[in-house]
Amino acid sequence: MSLNQSYNSPLLDAAVAELAKLPGIGRKTALRLALHLLRKEPETAISLGQSIIDMREGIRYCTVCHNITDEEVCPICSDPRRDHASVCVVENVKDVLTIESTHAHHGLYHVLGGLISPLDGITPSDLEIDSLVERVEREKVDEVILALNPTMEGDTTNFYIYRKLMHLPVKVTMLARGLAIGNELEYTDELTLGRSIQNRLPFSDTFNQES
Amino acid sequence: MSLNQSYNSPLLDAAVAELAKLPGIGRKTALRLALHLLRKEPETAISLGQSIIDMREGIRYCTVCHNITDEEVCPICSDPRRDHASVCVVENVKDVLTIESTHAHHGLYHVLGGLISPLDGITPSDLEIDSLVERVEREKVDEVILALNPTMEGDTTNFYIYRKLMHLPVKVTMLARGLAIGNELEYTDELTLGRSIQNRLPFSDTFNQES
Repeated sequence: MSLNQSYNSPLLDAAVAELAKLPGIGRKTALRLALHLLRKEPETAISLGQSIIDMREGIRYCTVCHNITDEEVCPICSDPRRDHASVCVVENVKDVLTIESTHAHHGLYHVLGGLISPLDGITPSDLEIDSLVERVEREKVDEVILALNPTMEGDTTNFYIYRKLMHLPVKVTMLARGLAIGNELEYTDELTLGRSIQNRLPFSDTFNQES
Repeated sequence: MSLNQSYNSPLLDAAVAELAKLPGIGRKTALRLALHLLRKEPETAISLGQSIIDMREGIRYCTVCHNITDEEVCPICSDPRRDHASVCVVENVKDVLTIESTHAHHGLYHVLGGLISPLDGITPSDLEIDSLVERVEREKVDEVILALNPTMEGDTTNFYIYRKLMHLPVKVTMLARGLAIGNELEYTDELTLGRSIQNRLPFSDTFNQES
């Protein structure tokens, strides 16, 4: 099928063109999805369309941590059972969900909105770094956990944030790096293996962590 | 991420749940698409949602051939340059697009809306077969081209339609079956190869077709 083919219906053409703008969805898949919606009862398509519009128009960003929320302050930041003295710094909204799914962090978050990347033109002022510093200065934060990707951009951003926070009375930690659980030594890259030898842990610590 | 995880926003939850109902899109992909729409400017998400609603509410089925259209009669059926005496019978709307993309059929279509399949509970009365017979009786149709899938269901439907039309003054033809162009003999199934030996063509015919 040619890419600019018209499907005898400008309405179908328009829906296919819009669906094909989504990442990972080409025109063939977009057409398949549109025809699927036409086969189903009208409510399916209408509630899909409406939920997308409602989401985009209704979602806001938490004024404290910049995570997505429907409220002024997100449910995590307003939850009194969470540890407000521990703030985990992540790149984006999806990383909040990923860390939440581990159930290993019981504190709050701070979403930067990206990583420092001069090649992509992303500088510290494009990110929520100043608001993190203000937050640490203003609120009672004991620990900032840097949970950024172990990449060049992540390390650059880690270091930049560390420099901004080092004079404040706050403990700055970062995610442990080492062997992935279940991986074999033979297939682990030298850099990771070397780091995990340098940062080896007392064996008794692992008992304490598991208990 | 757990499957029933809530994303701190009922609006996001709703959009992800709706997107995940689409065929081939799981919850992880749905979340990725929703977060993509949140990153883009609001117009992207709103025009996507609106185009889906408009399509579902606006699209009708051509009263002549049952193809999708925005009008009472589809652009193919109302095109005077097309051969109204030749009607190509297809299973669904997508097959119309597939055949149109070959530019080999210059007549009209008739969309059955499925194939006879007793196992799936689809009987001839569920399909647009009676309307095809009426159309052949009422209008000046010289040829009905059966372009259904070469499957058990397709053959059953072909035979049923043939029986309904055999007493009417209309030529009933079906798509040629044989070697797919570019395929090798060695990898062609015995049934197809056997059929294409039985239905072998005079070599001179191929010249005429290509000229």
